[in-house]
Amino acid sequence: MQVIVIGANACGAKSACRVKRLNPKAEVILIDKSELISYGACGIPYYVSGEILDEKALRETSFHVVRDEKFFTDAKGLKVLTRTLAEEIDRKRKTVKVRYLDSGKGEEIPYEKLVIATGSLPRPLNVPGVDLDGVYTLSGLSSAIEIKDRIARGEVERVVIIGAGLIGLEMAEAFADLWGLPVTLMEFFPQVLPRNLDPLLSRMVESHLREKGVKVLLNVKVKEILGKEGRVTGVQTETELYPADLVLIAVGVIPNSELAERAGLLVSPNTKGIIVNERLQTSDPDIYAGGDCIEVTHLVTGKKVVMPMGSLANRQGRVIGTNIAGGHAVFKGTVGAFIMKCFDLAVGGVGLTLNQAKTEGFNVGYALNNQTERSHFYPGAGIAFYELVFDKKTTRVLGFQAVGPMTDGTMARIHAVSSILPNNPTVEDLIDLELAYAPPFNTALDPIHDTAHVADNIIKGLFEPMEWDEVIRRLREGDAHSLIIDLRHPKEAEFLLKRYTNVRQILYQEFKYHLHEIPRDRDVILICNSSRRAYEVARILKGSGFERVYLPLGGLSFPKRWGEEVR
Amino acid sequence: MQVIVIGANACGAKSACRVKRLNPKAEVILIDKSELISYGACGIPYYVSGEILDEKALRETSFHVVRDEKFFTDAKGLKVLTRTLAEEIDRKRKTVKVRYLDSGKGEEIPYEKLVIATGSLPRPLNVPGVDLDGVYTLSGLSSAIEIKDRIARGEVERVVIIGAGLIGLEMAEAFADLWGLPVTLMEFFPQVLPRNLDPLLSRMVESHLREKGVKVLLNVKVKEILGKEGRVTGVQTETELYPADLVLIAVGVIPNSELAERAGLLVSPNTKGIIVNERLQTSDPDIYAGGDCIEVTHLVTGKKVVMPMGSLANRQGRVIGTNIAGGHAVFKGTVGAFIMKCFDLAVGGVGLTLNQAKTEGFNVGYALNNQTERSHFYPGAGIAFYELVFDKKTTRVLGFQAVGPMTDGTMARIHAVSSILPNNPTVEDLIDLELAYAPPFNTALDPIHDTAHVADNIIKGLFEPMEWDEVIRRLREGDAHSLIIDLRHPKEAEFLLKRYTNVRQILYQEFKYHLHEIPRDRDVILICNSSRRAYEVARILKGSGFERVYLPLGGLSFPKRWGEEVR
Repeated sequence: MQVIVIGANACGAKSACRVKRLNPKAEVILIDKSELISYGACGIPYYVSGEILDEKALRETSFHVVRDEKFFTDAKGLKVLTRTLAEEIDRKRKTVKVRYLDSGKGEEIPYEKLVIATGSLPRPLNVPGVDLDGVYTLSGLSSAIEIKDRIARGEVERVVIIGAGLIGLEMAEAFADLWGLPVTLMEFFPQVLPRNLDPLLSRMVESHLREKGVKVLLNVKVKEILGKEGRVTGVQTETELYPADLVLIAVGVIPNSELAERAGLLVSPNTKGIIVNERLQTSDPDIYAGGDCIEVTHLVTGKKVVMPMGSLANRQGRVIGTNIAGGHAVFKGTVGAFIMKCFDLAVGGVGLTLNQAKTEGFNVGYALNNQTERSHFYPGAGIAFYELVFDKKTTRVLGFQAVGPMTDGTMARIHAVSSILPNNPTVEDLIDLELAYAPPFNTALDPIHDTAHVADNIIKGLFEPMEWDEVIRRLREGDAHSLIIDLRHPKEAEFLLKRYTNVRQILYQEFKYHLHEIPRDRDVILICNSSRRAYEVARILKGSGFERVYLPLGGLSFPKRWGEEVR
Repeated sequence: MQVIVIGANACGAKSACRVKRLNPKAEVILIDKSELISYGACGIPYYVSGEILDEKALRETSFHVVRDEKFFTDAKGLKVLTRTLAEEIDRKRKTVKVRYLDSGKGEEIPYEKLVIATGSLPRPLNVPGVDLDGVYTLSGLSSAIEIKDRIARGEVERVVIIGAGLIGLEMAEAFADLWGLPVTLMEFFPQVLPRNLDPLLSRMVESHLREKGVKVLLNVKVKEILGKEGRVTGVQTETELYPADLVLIAVGVIPNSELAERAGLLVSPNTKGIIVNERLQTSDPDIYAGGDCIEVTHLVTGKKVVMPMGSLANRQGRVIGTNIAGGHAVFKGTVGAFIMKCFDLAVGGVGLTLNQAKTEGFNVGYALNNQTERSHFYPGAGIAFYELVFDKKTTRVLGFQAVGPMTDGTMARIHAVSSILPNNPTVEDLIDLELAYAPPFNTALDPIHDTAHVADNIIKGLFEPMEWDEVIRRLREGDAHSLIIDLRHPKEAEFLLKRYTNVRQILYQEFKYHLHEIPRDRDVILICNSSRRAYEVARILKGSGFERVYLPLGGLSFPKRWGEEVR
């Protein structure tokens, strides 16, 4: 059997090797237009930052052998053609026309089974100046090498990054943290990570970026990238000019499905992804496709999406390899799980964001929670922040997000939720999760449980949530119809009491002795650090017939971290 | 509504507070025989060690208020009776007879609903001398305070711990690490953590304990605890005498179900746990029970077990509170997830161990895997070890265990598997899990995936595993019918080549050029650090018609960590 694989990164390399392992007699030809193949693309920001010294490290196996043409030939038994462009697929004759980029010569290679793993292309930014020297997209390892060399040569003094998505944020850290470069991060949407994180969590990330010296600009429309003598000099937005000698455009990627489309394979007009079935066969059953170039089913909405993630690409490669070798494997879809490091924060999420869930027509509710990552009595536990997005009517879990200290705790929660999300769990199913506990690792009820409890209490109508922005507005305006009660220790409450006129302090554990002092003709807003005490007091008030009782979701730790004037 | 809750720790305190929150008008009476209530029992080892300075920290809320009688009265609105013994339940009259331990007086208190949360008792060790001064079980916070005071006063020079379960190991660390005391840890079974971990992983933990200076004695039968003038002096085993001035007996716990049994409630003769339904009602529907005193369904076997875990007790408390308050909540059962810190290791597991699975009659297989916790190119990644227990016929996942560096990575994997284990996943379901990836956190294919891949390859017969003990035996004996091929770099292979006669080194990536040198009349055993290269070479050999090809599961990193003579 002769198998051609076009694209020698995550999905392509994996499927080629898997075919060969399952069927050592198969002839497998691995084609890539670049000389640099099988690199850990997700590691690029850590290479640019200098944490990974040599680009070769990204191309090495875990036992430190570089995965180059020779390696795949010798160790894996593949035939490898690098610097080779797959120009055309002739499905009738079952051949791929290739061009050898060094010699310029062409050849037509026959296949029995073909794998298209052509990955993605940077989404273009339609403004003048994108072709200037010093303007980059992170389209592959070679551009990363160029960027790093440029910095190392001292040619870069000011960086502008356009796009505050996952890559934009990772690269902001790479430039700012280890090279000490001033970085301006521009985002069209009103928040960082607009496709991944909800506003209330993204504000933590935004504030953290600012603390780390990154200039974050939201709601920014780039008009033009400016240059002089072909070299970039700055970025012109609708309102201002930002000088820069390196500009990184990171506004997302689109599937590189052009070759497939020209071959007459079905490509989605919506997503631009190659259409595949669960076995990852394209509309031609002898041709498989996987990785960033395909569209997959979102398992929460049932709709088709592109989800360009290295982990999915690797899993898809294994599925394709198994199927080509005569086995049976499927890729059912994605729940969009992600995790990232942003300076000292671990940021992760899975499923739908609030906005995505609203767009899908769900009856959306959300719960916030913050708590120590370990038992509060265990020394050195940092605080982590959680959000659960759910459908208020069906109580179905739609999404879950976390922002915490740079430990594996955030991943632990995302792993747990992403593992069950394909089964359409309800909030109650999250409450029922068994999650191992010991004080050095977590709390007796894991943060997932407590976040789900908040959701459950909302669903059951046990308290009335109020947005923090609304609470803060009422504080600022000194709204006389509201009484904000700080349930913390008097020392902790000092700041709010001094600054705002409509705040009172009543100690949580003495609250019941002050019931007669609580007005019935004002909105009573109960606050504490995590809204746990506030919830309990709200229940006491409700039990005593108070109607106008509210509590902000997630506790004071949220606006504190956003940099609001609360303490 | 009048509710009595007997037992004011995890389950009891939780259920009492939950009832009160849902129904602020309920009269809830919380009874405990101790003065110290609502402490984080799982934190006791960290209090004894000195990591947590004051026992009060274990009884504090996250906002640093001690959860004593006054706190539960004022903040939670409960009636709290500490130092009060619940002597008898009169189910006909619906009363609890209590005795106030300070005054010696008795009283009969009526209930509408009753919660039994009496916890567990230390399993007794039936040898002479257990009552000597200086012999402890960890039955509660007060004995922990006594132990710590004793150490702090300099009265302890040598410690013997009987029982190498979770508590025994945590306490070994508490004594040895922070107090620097010489600790002898004795275990009746041939391994540490016999009820939680499989032998091949427990050997890592054992070897780590030894590295940390703990004297680990396995297969030990204690005959007597010796004393002089009422004070402990040592532990006599069947073969030797171990001097000690503090002996901790940690051979497990049994449900404290005696009060329930005397009240005529159904108690299992097998587990000694109180029998409850999913809503946690006992055989008397007005009486609920939860925490360490009940038996629950093991969701892998369907059988009844006791699972004395703080996390389950807290969850059960919430379920009971909801049900008493008129809501509907269930506790379906357990998959036995645990996590623990053992010096520099994080150790966790879920589901059945190999032995438990065999006892249950499954057609048991297991897969081992070791890999870096983060992308191998990301600096500072430690190696973690994984085992997956499965049924070879149905491919059902029965259990999963991990031993790794002291990060949250082990918890992340246990969280993921415990979240789906109640759904009876197959090995393929694990392969299909979506697990978020970024290089600072994990590998593109998460360790769960790669461990499941090993299992899948075993199930599909893609290679022939051999036990490491067998490989090491053949190495030691210089077995001439075996050729052990080290696929690593010649430098790495030096040690084995020098020490053993039947070893050859052939570099993995050059193996195919040496095919003609491989004997067909000997067992060819392929080794490398993780058995990944070995697996690939095994496939090449199989493809070339070799029959006698074996590879040890999990790679050389396993026996290296066990302290075997391999490198």
